[in-house]
Order: sequence, then structure tokens, then C-alpha cells
Amino acid sequence: MSIQLERVAYVIGILVMVVTIFMIAPMATDYADDNKDWRSFAHAFLITGTLSGLTIMVTRDHWSDSGVSLREGFLITSLSWLVIPVAGCLPFWFMDNDVHFVNSWFESVSGMTTTGSTILSGLDNLPPGILLWRSILQWIGGVGIILMAMLVLPFLRVGGMQIFRTESSDRSEKMLARDSTLIIQIAVAFILLTLACMVAYNVAGMSTFDALNHALTTISTGGYSTHDASMGYFEQPAIHWIASFFMVAASLPIVLYLKSFKNERFDIFRDIQVRGFLKICTGFILAVSLYLVLTHKYPPSDAIRIATFNVISIISTSGYALDDFTSWGPASNGIFLILMFLGGCTGSTAGGIKTYRLQAMSQITKRYVDLLFSPNRIINMRYGRRTITEDIVLSILAFLTAYAGCIFLVTLALTIFGLDILTAFSGATTALGNVGPGLGSIIGPSGNFSSLHDGAKIVLILAMILGRLEFFAMLVLLSPRFWR
Amino acid sequence: MSIQLERVAYVIGILVMVVTIFMIAPMATDYADDNKDWRSFAHAFLITGTLSGLTIMVTRDHWSDSGVSLREGFLITSLSWLVIPVAGCLPFWFMDNDVHFVNSWFESVSGMTTTGSTILSGLDNLPPGILLWRSILQWIGGVGIILMAMLVLPFLRVGGMQIFRTESSDRSEKMLARDSTLIIQIAVAFILLTLACMVAYNVAGMSTFDALNHALTTISTGGYSTHDASMGYFEQPAIHWIASFFMVAASLPIVLYLKSFKNERFDIFRDIQVRGFLKICTGFILAVSLYLVLTHKYPPSDAIRIATFNVISIISTSGYALDDFTSWGPASNGIFLILMFLGGCTGSTAGGIKTYRLQAMSQITKRYVDLLFSPNRIINMRYGRRTITEDIVLSILAFLTAYAGCIFLVTLALTIFGLDILTAFSGATTALGNVGPGLGSIIGPSGNFSSLHDGAKIVLILAMILGRLEFFAMLVLLSPRFWR
Repeated sequence: MSIQLERVAYVIGILVMVVTIFMIAPMATDYADDNKDWRSFAHAFLITGTLSGLTIMVTRDHWSDSGVSLREGFLITSLSWLVIPVAGCLPFWFMDNDVHFVNSWFESVSGMTTTGSTILSGLDNLPPGILLWRSILQWIGGVGIILMAMLVLPFLRVGGMQIFRTESSDRSEKMLARDSTLIIQIAVAFILLTLACMVAYNVAGMSTFDALNHALTTISTGGYSTHDASMGYFEQPAIHWIASFFMVAASLPIVLYLKSFKNERFDIFRDIQVRGFLKICTGFILAVSLYLVLTHKYPPSDAIRIATFNVISIISTSGYALDDFTSWGPASNGIFLILMFLGGCTGSTAGGIKTYRLQAMSQITKRYVDLLFSPNRIINMRYGRRTITEDIVLSILAFLTAYAGCIFLVTLALTIFGLDILTAFSGATTALGNVGPGLGSIIGPSGNFSSLHDGAKIVLILAMILGRLEFFAMLVLLSPRFWR
Repeated sequence: MSIQLERVAYVIGILVMVVTIFMIAPMATDYADDNKDWRSFAHAFLITGTLSGLTIMVTRDHWSDSGVSLREGFLITSLSWLVIPVAGCLPFWFMDNDVHFVNSWFESVSGMTTTGSTILSGLDNLPPGILLWRSILQWIGGVGIILMAMLVLPFLRVGGMQIFRTESSDRSEKMLARDSTLIIQIAVAFILLTLACMVAYNVAGMSTFDALNHALTTISTGGYSTHDASMGYFEQPAIHWIASFFMVAASLPIVLYLKSFKNERFDIFRDIQVRGFLKICTGFILAVSLYLVLTHKYPPSDAIRIATFNVISIISTSGYALDDFTSWGPASNGIFLILMFLGGCTGSTAGGIKTYRLQAMSQITKRYVDLLFSPNRIINMRYGRRTITEDIVLSILAFLTAYAGCIFLVTLALTIFGLDILTAFSGATTALGNVGPGLGSIIGPSGNFSSLHDGAKIVLILAMILGRLEFFAMLVLLSPRFWR
């Protein structure tokens, strides 16, 4: 179980190469648009292509088809989320606009982690290539997250995700030696969902370019838009409903779509996590709708549409804006702060605590209460048809400890860089949950992260990556024993 | 194990009678001071004395020396924290000042839970009796909390406190049938600590009346003062250091003092929880001192004194004010928000998450990280010489779930009553942790809770009680099974 750094470098080299190849699309777009900015992609392409190509060449002899060890798996997972966004940030850095390195890095990390916080403004006037690149970063990141959540994290037993371990993942001590079929199936499902979303947007009135970009960032629950006004740019209610529909679709475990397809039976709604997620969404949508009707005299149809869109945008950790919910009043700030923590289902691109953990916590707490006054009863804790083992209780407790600890440390670090406590706390929450907007006037839904201190941006970059990795895929690297 | 309400009523009747007897002290004080306000105590005394006397008379035949059942224990614990503060609030309500019922209730609950948030202003001009009553409420509440934490909660296995169960608590199915010696010992220790604190304050320059009041509220980590400026009223650095010393002393498990006395060996500092608490305090004091020296050019001696006082005031959940830490800058808000969650040791009057839970969480998380990359190792989790059993992991997870859930629900409820999100979130935190001040201009260390909506005050009242009961002693009552 020793670590061979060459094998780690080989895998990361391949992943960077994949990202490099994706740069061709925005480069071609800008070139066809007669926009000089195609050169920034060409430069980035040459640099990352050369470096990753060299890495692959030097290390490929160390690769064997038997896959990687557990420790190598952790190292690849962490390092790839640190290295790949640096490759992805080069086109921003090389742009004519004065986007300095930290801002470029922030934008790239926020993209690939599908957070969607941005330091760019004047989106409507940016070259089409750079807009497409932002959307592609989210989409690539989204695919990466799904694969990580499906293939890597359950194997690494991070954060209680072993509850979703399939039998096959137990059979082998090695990862990546199997599952090539599954990888292709997931990619195909992701592409089909994106195409369906794009067609729907297009039919509802978006230009083809906008439809493509928003489809890429909807299905990845990323939330980057091609307009400063985000989804508020589009006045057609149908577009808002389509966005809501596909954000929900993208917050469900993607493997359920594959199963439905294989079994030729659409039974996604029988899944306990999906039911829980939809119940939570419905509850919040009703509450926010009622709030908008009662306190802001919105017509019910508008209230339901706007409430649905915003609740789903935040709970799915997409982060599109439509109306500024922070301006509705104190209670909406309270509601949306809670939503930032919840998140979607596991096995999707949504961040946050995630529905199955909330359900397990609620199960455990209920059983615990029963135990308090019936101490001698033997209570079997269950999640659906699965038993909640001690191992899972331990994982979830560790996850919550890490989540709470990181929220506080990141908040503190941000206040040291001069952010007021509300901006700092909501900034920590939105970054660690990969949501997008925070609260307050600076980083709220109408705001922008560009004015923050560079130090604060670097803290947020680390927070976004840490959150995306469910903390422990990265925190294990801090244990001295890991390196023995 | 059925519930006999008469026995529940009998115990609560006795507790209310005890509180009633304490009313004689402020009544006598005001009478001696020739202050008409003695009558409000007389009225309260007659009402609560009559009601509790009647309750005791009617129910005493149902009492037997065999104690109470587990369910009755829960019911007594919850109901007494709901009922007794209502008895204690009458003197405020009957005052000449226009303190309406909700404000009186808030002040009494904040007192007895040793939170220390206040709705009164112009303290310096209030009748001495009412000031003394506030201090006495905190002191009685403090004794009640210690007894509950020592005798009741470990028995009820709330929030992982079974880790402190002594062998004797396992032996009997019935509570309150034993331990009368322990109750007396604890009360004596509490009285001795209070006297020592009072003498120290007096020698350092406080008037006897101020020394008595502040001793009562220091040893109970309550934080009520006789002056609007709180501890800032006293300019003698010695007084601030004495307060810091005794706030720390009051945050340690009081049973350790008894043990030291019995064993004739002072080995409190060998306790793992005490060491952890002191380490946390030292770390924060150094950080805040450095912050004050670097950013505010305080002389080092002032910086250390003010940092020590404020850090300990918040982490011990006392809540005295000396300087307004929220005005120091964003980073101090971040630090003090974290401190509001931490709390002191269990078995003391301090609220919050408490040191042993933080230590257990940190132990569990470390072991979990090791398990991630060495899945086959068998790891025994330990807290000092005790093993962290599955039961304890479960309790702590349930505790954190309840804590987080209540923080969010209370925050949301407060925003519905119009509080801005920072006031609401810090208000929820300070109430559930029984700290005292919040953040922001309204309820910060220089602020006051009187301007809040009455609905918000009632939410905070419930939050203070819920936090004091470590959530589950009350939440069990919501389970339908409890009543079967």
C-alpha cells in the first residue's frame, strides 16, 4: 500500500490533458467570432498540453492496469482538485482584461467545484470564448464530481458515503481497475441531460449560445451565467421553470437514471433520498411563496415561480440569481442561510451536507430520543433497506465536526482579511457548500467576489476545494501517519 | 415506569418553595433601605408561597422515598425549568417600573439559566432588592444546573454525559433516592466559592453590596451586573483579574473540588477536560491579546487583561462586558462568535457545546481519519481513561444535530420577528449556549434585549431553557412514545 508518486502524476497528467483538449472549443468559438481572445486559449493550450504531455510520457511506464492503491487514490483525488483548476485558470489570466492570477484561479476553482461565485463583471460584454470556457469548466467539474462521488469517495469511506458502496466496490482492493463501462454510462447520461436542457432553453426563447452555456451550468448545478443579471436576464417564465426542473434533475443521484434505463422502469421517486430531497424542497418553496405573497403582495403565480427558482437554485447549490432574495427581508435571509447548508442528493453535483446525511442524522436522533427513556430496548437504526452501522455514525459525526470546524476557521480567516462577520460567515458557508452567492451587500446574489482581499480569495479557494472533497479526502493528507 | 403527575408536581412544588424562601433576602434589603419596592417581593412571596404550599400539601401523600422513575425524571427536569422562572419573574412584574410580563419572564429565565441577557436598563438606579434578586436568580439557577448536570443528566444519558456516570448511578433504577450527601457537599462548595469571590472583590475595591452581587453572578457564570457598564464600571485592574480567575474556577467541574478536598490532594489540573479547557482559553487569550496590541496599539498589560477577561467571560458563558469587543473589528467578531459555541467544562454552570464534547469530537475525527487509509486497523477510541463507546458517539451526534437544528430554527424564528440575520443568528447562539451578549448593535455587549419584539423574546426564552437542558431533557417530551 505504498505511494508511488509517478502513478499519481500519470493520472493527474491525463486529467489535465483532458481539460486541455476541452480548450479547443472556446478557442474555435473566439476564432470564428473574429475575437483576438482566441490567442489566450492557444497560449494556455500550448502550456498545459506540453506540461501534461511531458508528465504522461515520463510516468507512463509506472502505470499498470491493476489500478492504484488506497493512499494513491486519496493523493490523486486531492491533488487533481488542486492542480487541474490551475491549468483551467490560464485562459482567464491571459485575457486582455486585467484579471490577475488570484482572480483567475478563484474563477477557475469556483467553476470546477461548481460553486459559481464569480470575480468577473460585465459578463454581457466578454468574448464568447471566455463565457463558454466558464461554462465548460463547470461541466467538466460536474462530471469529475459525479465520478468521484460514485467511484472514489464510497471506496475511500468518506463522510458516511460507504452506505452507497455497491457490492462490486468491496470486491477489489484497487480502484480504477474496473468501472470503465460505468464511467462511459455516466458521461453519456450527463451529455443527454445537458442536451435535453439545452433544447428546452432554446425552445423557450434563449439564443443557442445562451442555451448551451446555461445547459452546461444547470446540469452541473454550477450557476455561471453569460449575463450579469444571471437568470434575471431572461423574462420568460418558461425559462425559469425549465431551469428549476433541470436543477432538481441534476440534484438527484445520476446513477438512478442509469438504473431506470437498465430496468426499463422509471422508479426514481421510490428512492428514499430522492423523496426526502423533494419533500424538503416542497416545504421551503411553500414557505417562501407564502412569504412573498403575504409580505410583498406578489401575485401567487409569480410568487411560486420565483420561490421555486430561488429555493432550488440554493438548495441544489447552483446559485443562479433571479430577484435578490436577500433584499426581501430578514426572514428570507434566515431561510436562505439554512438552504446553503442543506444541499442535494449524494451522487449528484450538488454540495452541502446532502440529503442522505440529513436523513441519517434525523433517524439517529429520533432513535436516540427513544433510547433515552427506554434504555433497555434494542433499536436497529435503518436508512431505507440499509442498516446504519456504527461505522456510518462515526463517519457522519466526523463529517459534521469537520464541516463545523471549517465553517468557523474559514469565517475567522475571512474576518482577519477585513470582511464583516455576515459576509465572512455566509462566504465560508457558500464556499464550503459550493453554493455560489453569500449574504450581505458584497457577496449577495447581486454582488461579486472581486472586491475581496486576495488573501480572502485564497481562503475561499481552499474552502471550495475542501468542501468539494467532502473534507476528508483532503484532510487525510494532514495526518502524519498517512505518509508513513 | 409509568408517570405519576402528583409526584412530579410534588418535586416542583418543593423547588418553587425554595425559590420563594430566597425572596426574603431582597425583600428585607429593600425594606431596610426604606424602598417601597419591598412590597413587590411581598406580593410575589405570598402568591408563589401559597401556590407551592398548596401543591405540596395536595401531592405529598403520593411521594415515597423510593424516588422517581426515568420518565418522571425527564418531566420534572423540563417542567421545573419552565415553571420556576415564572415564579421568579413576579418581583420584576410587580415593580413600579413598567416591566411587562414577557420582559419579566425573559429576565427571570435569562437569570436562572445563567445566560445573563437583560431587558433592564438604568441598573445603577434600580432598587437594591431587585438587583439582588437578579443575582440570586443566577445563583439559584447555577446550583440547580450543577445538581442537574451531576445527578440527573448522566442518569438520563443526555448528550454523551453518560461518560461521567459514576458506578453508583448505574446501580439504581431510581433517581433522587440517593445522593443527598452529594447535594449538600455541592451546595457547600458553591457557597464557599461564592464567599471567597465576594471577599476578593471587596478587598479589591468593590462595595460590599456590589461584591456580593458580582460574586453570586460570577460563580454561577451568569453575568448579571449591578451597573449598566457591567464590569467596565470598575476601573481597578485587580477586579478584572479576580473576575477572570473566578470565572475560570466556576467553569471547571465542581465535583473535582470535592474530590480534591476528600483526597486531601489538589489534582484538578490532571483532569483531561480541565487541561483541554485551559489550553483552549490560553490559545484564544494569546490571539486576542496579540490582536489588540497589533491593531489597536493597546499596551501589552492592558491587552492581556482585557483579552483574558473577555475571552473567559464568553467561553465560560458568563457574559460580563468590559470594553465592547464587537467594536474592535471584524476579526474579533469572528473570534467571539466561535467562543459563544465552545463553552466550559461539563459539571459546571457554563453552557455551550462544552470541552469534553469538543475533545471527544476531535478524538473521534482523528481516529476516523486514521481509519480512512488503514481500514483494517482496529482502533480503540479513548477519552482519558474511559473508552468512547458507540453509545457515546451516538449521543454526541444526536446532540450536535439538535444544536445545529435549534440554531437554525431559532435564527429563522427570530428573523420572522424582524431581526436582521446577524442579530438573529448571534441571538440564537447566545441564548442556546446561555452566554449573554450577541453580536451587532442591538444585542451586542453594549446593547440590550428590551427593544426586541415580544415574540422574539419568547423564542429566546424557549431557546435559553432548551440549551440549558442540553436539548434532549426537553425534546424527549415531544416523542409520542414518551407518553405511552
